[in-house]
Amino acid sequence: MKTSNPAAAPRTLLLTPGPLTTSDATRAAMERDWGSRDAAFVALSDRLRRRLAAIAGGAGTHEAVLLAGSGTAAVEAALGSLIPRDGRTLLLVNGAYGRRMAEILRRLGRDHVVREWPEDEAVDPGELDAILADDPTVGDVALVHCETTSGLLNPLEAVASVVRRHGRRLLLDAMSSFGALRIDAARLGLVAVMASSNKCLEGVPGIGFVVADSAHLATCAGQASSLSLDLFDQAAAFRADGQWRFTPPVQVAAALDAALDQLDAEGGVAARGARYRRLHARLVEGMAALGFETYLTPALQAPIIVTFRDPGPPFSFERFHAALQADGIVIYPGKLTRAPSFRIGCIGALDEADIERALAAIARTL
Amino acid sequence: MKTSNPAAAPRTLLLTPGPLTTSDATRAAMERDWGSRDAAFVALSDRLRRRLAAIAGGAGTHEAVLLAGSGTAAVEAALGSLIPRDGRTLLLVNGAYGRRMAEILRRLGRDHVVREWPEDEAVDPGELDAILADDPTVGDVALVHCETTSGLLNPLEAVASVVRRHGRRLLLDAMSSFGALRIDAARLGLVAVMASSNKCLEGVPGIGFVVADSAHLATCAGQASSLSLDLFDQAAAFRADGQWRFTPPVQVAAALDAALDQLDAEGGVAARGARYRRLHARLVEGMAALGFETYLTPALQAPIIVTFRDPGPPFSFERFHAALQADGIVIYPGKLTRAPSFRIGCIGALDEADIERALAAIARTL
Repeated sequence: MKTSNPAAAPRTLLLTPGPLTTSDATRAAMERDWGSRDAAFVALSDRLRRRLAAIAGGAGTHEAVLLAGSGTAAVEAALGSLIPRDGRTLLLVNGAYGRRMAEILRRLGRDHVVREWPEDEAVDPGELDAILADDPTVGDVALVHCETTSGLLNPLEAVASVVRRHGRRLLLDAMSSFGALRIDAARLGLVAVMASSNKCLEGVPGIGFVVADSAHLATCAGQASSLSLDLFDQAAAFRADGQWRFTPPVQVAAALDAALDQLDAEGGVAARGARYRRLHARLVEGMAALGFETYLTPALQAPIIVTFRDPGPPFSFERFHAALQADGIVIYPGKLTRAPSFRIGCIGALDEADIERALAAIARTL
Repeated sequence: MKTSNPAAAPRTLLLTPGPLTTSDATRAAMERDWGSRDAAFVALSDRLRRRLAAIAGGAGTHEAVLLAGSGTAAVEAALGSLIPRDGRTLLLVNGAYGRRMAEILRRLGRDHVVREWPEDEAVDPGELDAILADDPTVGDVALVHCETTSGLLNPLEAVASVVRRHGRRLLLDAMSSFGALRIDAARLGLVAVMASSNKCLEGVPGIGFVVADSAHLATCAGQASSLSLDLFDQAAAFRADGQWRFTPPVQVAAALDAALDQLDAEGGVAARGARYRRLHARLVEGMAALGFETYLTPALQAPIIVTFRDPGPPFSFERFHAALQADGIVIYPGKLTRAPSFRIGCIGALDEADIERALAAIARTL
């Protein structure tokens, strides 16, 4: 990845779940003003929508609905807009982001049931099968693809297959996988894929979006109890005249468009995922050589963010974090409910040299 | 205002209600990455919150709660978080933004009553007095300070005085006035002032915020039916550790901080308002010389955006807009429900020479 100036101080590396390290080209795309109702910005928005639907594997069947806001706002928009008001939703939970979907439905006053697994276990499609067989009133199922809490990858294909067989709808929180791990929304029959501008797409934060099944979306008029988070209304506006209903973050949109150019140039989702897998493998190997153990078994680990066990005294995460920060390396605290841990991300505009730099800084710190 | 390069093509002037023309310094502040949980970004967010509360005239009594999203999201967050679920709200409406608040309450399922005036008349404090005397069940009143629909300035002082005398709460949509027109939240007893990063503050779009009365806010736990738009929870998080609950648009926040530096350097709200009044006076004078009439009587007009009457054939707004756009001047269609019209804004990083340039382009176009 290009950095501004090889003679300058090394850039800060954000080895976190986001916001992430972005490229100079992505940030440079924010250098101009845009009239949000002008033809040039309408064309940019339309291009973003087509590209995001294609990345989700939903070109022709799905449409991307963009919102100003965080990824959580996009998740709330999807749950509030695409699930019938009197529907019952099953949440498959093994971390904080699954629990957050339950909290959203609780506040919206929508009926839901939670099945929770330990944070180091994947969602079990067999149990899902039994629950759906048992409860015909569950209309929708929601899953987190990669649980950033632990770094775990849930078995999307198997879950989608069970949900499809039972004739229910599946909504996927793909916040931290979108753009790096293949998602085939049409083939898997996903009703919605929720993500944001600033994770594996390597844009800057400020846009959340939902790639929604167009046929289902058409049935969702009046379902949202929010104006600003109503996906049906926003999709209708995009279809009518290509416009955002409310002032869009124009520079963030331009940065996302530039970031998608770079995704294409890299070779698309497969190539980006391959880069992240290389970075992840080197990170885990380097950390193992320094004596750090991963929390998850390798089979469950996504190449997005890694949870390492806190080795205990004399190690202190606060001192470790501060020392690395002084070296321009930002890592993340753990989020597990039980084991003391910390997290290091391997996504963003990073290459192998960045991981080597981080490992060298970590070795110096110890 | 500084432009990038005097030898380059003249920059595009956005004479719209926003997003607006921003300065090079504001956009340059987006050139770096930020870890959103790092001390530097926490300090930046804290600085933004203190500055915004002070601009609203609420330092010490009010607190600014920032959200990723549009101005409309901030309005929805305020109405949903600060009004009791079983409360009854009176909406004082004379344009599209007042009607939008009614639509938000309708969707949230909150009881409300609308008093509507024609789009070329100000809200009448005398009628408000009678309504409040008549209906003791109205707990909250909501007003749009400057109605961008027409460009009209509502009588904030008089409305606030009536609301205060009746012991009710007033929420102010100050989207297009915040930073240019004086708002004295503490003295006027405002419960909430809603605005966004990209109007008279001259930041880029992507952050909406509410400057809320701290004592009232403390009573609002659990009132919002939204997770992402819950002001109580977000204020509690800012107070606890200075953090945004969900990924903030870090570059947009940095741009807003830089824009507030420029507001201070200009001389604050009074100086900014004075500049806009100069631009507005020259715009109206120049347009009058070209034969264009304003829609509002001068006493009702805010120095933010001006509605001009469409003079009718052979004038065509579409051709006029396109010709100006080719000249790098972006103007805006009308939004009145009745009279054919168009709008020209006089806010943003603009000076007198920019208005002269726009007037010259308009003269050439005719």
